[in-house]
Amino acid sequence: MSQEFLQLIPVDEVLRLFHRFRPIERIETLPLLEAVGRVTADAVVAGESLPAFPRALMDGFAVRAADVASARETSPVFLRVAGEVAMGQVTQASLQPGECIAVATGAMVPPGADAVAMVEHTRPGPDGTVEFTRAAAAHDHLLLPGEDVAQGTQVFAAGRRVCPLDVGALSALGISRLRVRARPVVAIVSTGDELVEPSARPAPGQVRDTNGGTLHAQVQACGGIPLLLGRVPDTLDALRAAVAAARGKVDLLLLSGGSSMGTRDHTAQVLSEQAGNALLVHGIAIAPGKPTLLADLGGVPAFGLPGHPVSSFVVFHVVVSALLRRLAGELRPPLPKLRRTRLRANVVAAVGRETYVPVRLEEDGRSLRAVPTLGNSAVHSSLLQCDGLVRIPLHQEGWAQGDEVDVEVLR
Amino acid sequence: MSQEFLQLIPVDEVLRLFHRFRPIERIETLPLLEAVGRVTADAVVAGESLPAFPRALMDGFAVRAADVASARETSPVFLRVAGEVAMGQVTQASLQPGECIAVATGAMVPPGADAVAMVEHTRPGPDGTVEFTRAAAAHDHLLLPGEDVAQGTQVFAAGRRVCPLDVGALSALGISRLRVRARPVVAIVSTGDELVEPSARPAPGQVRDTNGGTLHAQVQACGGIPLLLGRVPDTLDALRAAVAAARGKVDLLLLSGGSSMGTRDHTAQVLSEQAGNALLVHGIAIAPGKPTLLADLGGVPAFGLPGHPVSSFVVFHVVVSALLRRLAGELRPPLPKLRRTRLRANVVAAVGRETYVPVRLEEDGRSLRAVPTLGNSAVHSSLLQCDGLVRIPLHQEGWAQGDEVDVEVLR
Repeated sequence: MSQEFLQLIPVDEVLRLFHRFRPIERIETLPLLEAVGRVTADAVVAGESLPAFPRALMDGFAVRAADVASARETSPVFLRVAGEVAMGQVTQASLQPGECIAVATGAMVPPGADAVAMVEHTRPGPDGTVEFTRAAAAHDHLLLPGEDVAQGTQVFAAGRRVCPLDVGALSALGISRLRVRARPVVAIVSTGDELVEPSARPAPGQVRDTNGGTLHAQVQACGGIPLLLGRVPDTLDALRAAVAAARGKVDLLLLSGGSSMGTRDHTAQVLSEQAGNALLVHGIAIAPGKPTLLADLGGVPAFGLPGHPVSSFVVFHVVVSALLRRLAGELRPPLPKLRRTRLRANVVAAVGRETYVPVRLEEDGRSLRAVPTLGNSAVHSSLLQCDGLVRIPLHQEGWAQGDEVDVEVLR
Repeated sequence: MSQEFLQLIPVDEVLRLFHRFRPIERIETLPLLEAVGRVTADAVVAGESLPAFPRALMDGFAVRAADVASARETSPVFLRVAGEVAMGQVTQASLQPGECIAVATGAMVPPGADAVAMVEHTRPGPDGTVEFTRAAAAHDHLLLPGEDVAQGTQVFAAGRRVCPLDVGALSALGISRLRVRARPVVAIVSTGDELVEPSARPAPGQVRDTNGGTLHAQVQACGGIPLLLGRVPDTLDALRAAVAAARGKVDLLLLSGGSSMGTRDHTAQVLSEQAGNALLVHGIAIAPGKPTLLADLGGVPAFGLPGHPVSSFVVFHVVVSALLRRLAGELRPPLPKLRRTRLRANVVAAVGRETYVPVRLEEDGRSLRAVPTLGNSAVHSSLLQCDGLVRIPLHQEGWAQGDEVDVEVLR
C-alpha cells in the first residue's frame, strides 16, 4: 500500500504530462454564428477599418467645433441648417463655416464637420437656424474612421474560444466565416460485469451504468463530441477489443469503471502492453479519484477512470477536461466560476492528496454558506445535491468551520 | 430631457414586471442525456431505492463486525473464507459466524454480514483462512439499501436546469427520460435604414447588422432558440409588419436597433398602438442601455433594444436573459460567475443609472486586476477586448482605482 501511495502523481504534474499530446489538426470553416463556442485555428486580422466613415454617436447636429466654441446658455450661437444626413446615406456636400447639418445616431458625419452637438443642447432658431447653448469640442460624440478597429489590427488570437462578446466586432468587420478546430471526439467505454444499460432493470447484484452518461454530459459541456461505446465485461480480451476499436479513430479514450483492484490491473495491462503504448500515470494524488490511469496509445491519450461516481466526476472535472481543452486547441482555459463563502462544517483532506469536497450553497441572510453534502464517493446523491466543489490543496489538512473558501460553482 | 429621466425605471422594478408573463406551456419528453441543459417540467421522485442491495465500497471481505471486533496487528483474528461474491451476482448463502466472504468494490454484500474489512487490513492465513489485523465496526465500507436515495424521495425539483452533476443519480434510478419545457423561441428583428447583411460589403454610410448576430448568440447561450428574421427599414409600416409576423408565433420578440430618437418613437408607437398591447417600460435606469422598451403584446413580451452594441449586449445580459429564463420555466437563475479583483482605474457611473463597465482581466503577479476597456457604448472593440462587466449600483457615483470589485466574468 505504501508503495502504491509513493506512485501517486500530484495533479500539477499530471497536467504537465499533457504537453506530449498535440491539439487535433482537423480544421472546419464555419459561419460565424455556428463558430460560437468553438476554438479558432488562426489569428484573425481586420481587413477593413471600423467605423469605415465618421459616425455620429448621438442625435444632433454635425458642426465645426470652432463655430460653437463660445456657445453658452446665456450667449447662444446660431448656425444655419444646411440639411440633414439620412441614415445609411452619403452626405452630398462638405460643411461650410457657419453651417450645421442634422444627423441621427449612427449617421455619417459630413466632411468639414469635426464634432456632433447633442440635440438636447440645441433649440430651433429663427430663419432656418439652430441655437446652440453649449460649446462642443472637436471629436465630441463622433467616432473617427478606424477609431474602433484599425485595418490590419489582430482582432482575435488563435486558440481562443469564440463567445457572444466577440460576435459583434467580427461581424462588423465582415468576418462571416471562421476557421476553427474540429471538436475532439471522445470515446467512452464502461467496464464492469455488474453494469446494465441505464434503461434496463438491474437484476439483484447488478447496477445501471451511470458514469457513462455523466461523462457524456461532461464531454459535451467541455466542447467535445462524446461517443458512448457501451459496456464491456471485466476481461482482458474484452478490454483489448474495446481499446483496439477506439485506437486511431478517436481523439481521446475514456475507460470508465473498474473500481475494483482486479479491474484496475486489467486496464493498466491493456493500456500498456502494446508496442508504442506508454502508461504515464498509475494513480493521482487526488481525492476522490486516486485510482486513475493515463496512457499514451501511440499519440492518442487514454484515461482509466475510477468507478465511484463522485471520483469519476471530480477526475474528469479537474484533470480530463484540461486535456480535452488542450486537444481542442484552447490555449487559455476559462476562469473557473468561484464563489467566496464560509464553510458550515469542517472538511478533512485525504492524507497526501489534493481533495475535492462537494458542497451545497445555502442562503444565510444575505450571504451564502457552503455545506458539505453527506456521503462518500460512491453516493450519487452527493453530486445531485451539491452546487460545487471546495478544494483542499495538497499537504493541507483541511478547512475549518467558518473558514472562507472558494467554491467552484458547477450549476 | 428631465422628463425622460423621470420615466426611467430601475432594473429591479423591470425584473418585477416579468411576473405578468407565464412560462411557456409546451412540454417535451426527452432521453436523459438530451435533457441536459433543459428545465424540468415536473418534480422527479425516486421509484426505487439506491442502492437496491447492500454494496461493498472497498475491495476486501464481508464480515460480521462482532467477529473481528478484537482484531489488532498484534492479536489478529482468523476467519474461514466461505467463498467469493462475483461482480453482478447474487450471493448464494448467508454468512455464518466465524466466516468471511471475499467481495470486490461494488459487489453485493451477503446476508449475515454487516461490514466490509479492507483487503489492506488483512493477510492470507493458513488452511483457507484470512488474517484480520484491524477491527471493523458495523456499517464499515458498506452502503445499505436506500442509504444513497430512498424510494419515494423527491430527487429533482420542477423548474430546475439539468446539469452534468445530475445525470448519474437520475440514471442510477432508471430515470431514462425527462419531461422538460420546450426551449423558448425568440424572434430577432433588426431595424435601421443603414443596416446591411453581415456578409455584404456596406456602401459608404451603411454598416453591417451586428446586434442581430450577437443577440442570436446570447439567446442560444441562455437556452433559447433564436430566429433571425432579418432587417427592416425604419418606417412604421415595416415595423408593424414585423411585429404582426412575430406575434403569436414566438415566445419573445426582440426589436434591435433604432438607437436614434425617431426610430425609438416608431418602435414605441408600434409596440403600443394595437388593442391588447401595453407599453410597460419606456427607458430603463441602466447605462449603457437607457433607451430600452418593453411591451406586452397580448401576452407575448417584446423588447425594443438600443442600437449601440455595448448597450444591446448589456441590456440583454442584465434584463432580457432574466425574462428568457422565466419563460423557460427556470425558477432559480444560476449564480453569476464572479471574480473579486482590484480596479486599475476609476470608473464613473452615469447619473441616476445602474452602470455596467466592460473590463479586461489582467494578471498582476499572482492576482488579477480589472482594467476598463476603452471606448463608449458604440465601440465594438470594447466588448471584444473585455472579459466581463463591473457593476456600479444605482445611486453610487463609481468605483475608485484600487477598490475591490466583483467582475462578472463572461468568457
